[in-house]
Amino acid sequence: MSQLKAPPLPFRAIDLIRKKRDGAELSEGEIGWLVSAYTRGDIPDYQVSAWLMAVVLRGMTRPETAVLTDAMLHSGEVLDLSSLPAKKVDKHSTGGVGDKTSLVLAPLAAAAGITVPMISGRGLGHTGGTLDKLEAIPGFDVHLGVGEFHRVLETCGCAMIGQTAEIDPADRKLYALRDVTGTVESPYLICASIMSKKLAEGIDGLVLDVKTGCGAFMKNEKDAGFLAELMVETGERMGKQVVALITDMDQPLGNMIGNSLEVIEAVDVLHGSGPEDLRELCLELAGWMLHLGGVAETVTEAKQQSARLISSGKAWEKFGQMVALQRGDSKAIDDVRRLPRARQTREVSAVTSGYLVAMQCEQIGTACVILGGGRERKEDAVDPAVGIVLHKKVGDRVATGEPVATIHYNEESRAERARHLILESCQIGDVAPPKRPLIHKIIGKSGEQN
Amino acid sequence: MSQLKAPPLPFRAIDLIRKKRDGAELSEGEIGWLVSAYTRGDIPDYQVSAWLMAVVLRGMTRPETAVLTDAMLHSGEVLDLSSLPAKKVDKHSTGGVGDKTSLVLAPLAAAAGITVPMISGRGLGHTGGTLDKLEAIPGFDVHLGVGEFHRVLETCGCAMIGQTAEIDPADRKLYALRDVTGTVESPYLICASIMSKKLAEGIDGLVLDVKTGCGAFMKNEKDAGFLAELMVETGERMGKQVVALITDMDQPLGNMIGNSLEVIEAVDVLHGSGPEDLRELCLELAGWMLHLGGVAETVTEAKQQSARLISSGKAWEKFGQMVALQRGDSKAIDDVRRLPRARQTREVSAVTSGYLVAMQCEQIGTACVILGGGRERKEDAVDPAVGIVLHKKVGDRVATGEPVATIHYNEESRAERARHLILESCQIGDVAPPKRPLIHKIIGKSGEQN
Repeated sequence: MSQLKAPPLPFRAIDLIRKKRDGAELSEGEIGWLVSAYTRGDIPDYQVSAWLMAVVLRGMTRPETAVLTDAMLHSGEVLDLSSLPAKKVDKHSTGGVGDKTSLVLAPLAAAAGITVPMISGRGLGHTGGTLDKLEAIPGFDVHLGVGEFHRVLETCGCAMIGQTAEIDPADRKLYALRDVTGTVESPYLICASIMSKKLAEGIDGLVLDVKTGCGAFMKNEKDAGFLAELMVETGERMGKQVVALITDMDQPLGNMIGNSLEVIEAVDVLHGSGPEDLRELCLELAGWMLHLGGVAETVTEAKQQSARLISSGKAWEKFGQMVALQRGDSKAIDDVRRLPRARQTREVSAVTSGYLVAMQCEQIGTACVILGGGRERKEDAVDPAVGIVLHKKVGDRVATGEPVATIHYNEESRAERARHLILESCQIGDVAPPKRPLIHKIIGKSGEQN
Repeated sequence: MSQLKAPPLPFRAIDLIRKKRDGAELSEGEIGWLVSAYTRGDIPDYQVSAWLMAVVLRGMTRPETAVLTDAMLHSGEVLDLSSLPAKKVDKHSTGGVGDKTSLVLAPLAAAAGITVPMISGRGLGHTGGTLDKLEAIPGFDVHLGVGEFHRVLETCGCAMIGQTAEIDPADRKLYALRDVTGTVESPYLICASIMSKKLAEGIDGLVLDVKTGCGAFMKNEKDAGFLAELMVETGERMGKQVVALITDMDQPLGNMIGNSLEVIEAVDVLHGSGPEDLRELCLELAGWMLHLGGVAETVTEAKQQSARLISSGKAWEKFGQMVALQRGDSKAIDDVRRLPRARQTREVSAVTSGYLVAMQCEQIGTACVILGGGRERKEDAVDPAVGIVLHKKVGDRVATGEPVATIHYNEESRAERARHLILESCQIGDVAPPKRPLIHKIIGKSGEQN
């Protein structure tokens, strides 16, 4: 009977729901209206959740995905960093365990002359969040307004803050709805959510770290690759330089998990030490950031330059400058023993000997959450001091009774639960497992070094 | 992170949404909880609409469909007609144009000794509704409470009312949500909606008239057959005798469309006259009702008995009794010129000659809605007087200038719009079309007369 009714608005939500339900492609005007009307509160949640479920099950075309990203991006303020002469390049990770690369990359790329306007998130599920890590530094303020963010960027070339009310309100509203309606798991919606937030930073280039493995949200490489390609294509359709690295998250990155502990390990890398895998990934990602930012001709050159910026102390200097500008306690990073420390530690010892064949990486992340390092409920406070230090990584030999990890804890009962989870997550066998590469694949910037 | 949270309720809506989204089968407990918690208001609309969309796109198993039907049925009161000794049998149609069989069938089956506790609906889209037709009889009250409904049934064997607040509240709430979220079009949800309402009448048997053709909601026979089988199996799983007839709705049923006009045509059939197709379908459906009700051994016998109940005047008598008991004006059915009449009529004349090859049946229904005989918006009042009388049916010869229909109207502008639609809907050609059968298929009561 729709032919009898004059539509009261340019579009009707019901028609757009039906169209997606039946597998058709929505137009730019339709998606734009849907996003802006929902953000304004003109479409009820129950219509948008039906539409989101139709998207989850029917998918979206590439043009639809780009249009959705663009509509979300323009639902709020898009930062104007045009007064800053340097290229603006950011990095985004899809989330993992022990991933503290952002803390290294922002000052490192800034030391190379790039502007890094990094807007990050908090821990989600079993994964850590950059904001929680930064807040382990006493006084560090992640809630800068747009004006102060701009001033810090101008002064030191990098700044790290949380989402602000002005930026991408459509994503905040849509994400909250997706979270409670089983509609998180769509590469199209994940792509639009990530890309709209990142492109609202007013950047020229973006390096995406798409994690794959048992500690990632995308457990298999095929799904990770699909999402990576989608994000690269969406970014390119919007005129940005985007590259995606599919990287390994089948075990934690580096040796430390937990907020203070991860700051310590990031500081180690900025001082030229730190675990090999973390250092390698930081240099690889920094290489791509510098390359996209036009600082180096090739990624190889850019990696060499990054390594020099670490060994010369320039990257560390930049980190100190940013911490001070964001009201963090400089003494706590100069002497990391001043960072929050857990009252107690306990070793997790192997009950058999052999090779560490695999780690259930998601369980290690969950163990850290249980210790208080993440949130079991949204309203929980995070304990910055607790966490896990790994002494063994996959492929290492382990003897019975030898510690595989040390738990840093403040509550006895939590420590016991975490210890069980960690023990359970470590699989020990007789044969050394084949080594998984750290970088699985590089997508974008066609062919270059792939 | 779900393993960390103690579920606050026996189930969590989000888990059931995800399960259906991923194509899994929900358990009896899960569906039962979802329906009762939603009806109580414990689950928000936005979660249920996401679940409904997942059902539309993923489907349901037969057990799930039966469990959903059962949960909806028990969301409210199930009529207890056990004090009435006769078998209780009802008929339900999926909706068409010019379908006034219910007005004939309820008194006809009651005259054969069956109890017919008929709870009907209003016009939906281009289709008419039994309640709107009954209300064309001045004074006829379709809003009986459960107590009075029971008393009318006891006195005369049939009663025809609208949905009450006590019966199937889950369906009312779910249907309202489906209507605005593009989730009406699922055979599983349609089946659960129809069957839960009908089985809440406390019946032993049900005859389903599933329409197919351009005037039906299920345009093709495959979809109609799928829905019919689903409803029959669901009814049988719930221990009821159910048969479904797939019947033709490629042109209007009978010659009259519009509320008063359809009462007149039903009265004609009850008097032993009326158009052939309408009379044939009434006898066929009555035959099945009597057969399910145990009044006749075979459907053939039951049809003969129905014809006798019409020619003897017994069915007509029952109709009069029901109208009087439901406070309808008996004089208006004894002399149908007392029913509401439109102020004006206008003929729709053929502009060419040949055979009437096809009628766009949905457009004829829409023409009646435009005249005021149905609702363009939910809040619209229905004009009982207006409608369309067809002078030609598909297969008839038509000469240029000869009237194919007469419009009964009260508003000039509406009459013109309706006239155009009717003309447009009549396709005239040189070759007589093949005759479509009235009964396409019979499903259920395995094999008998199929």
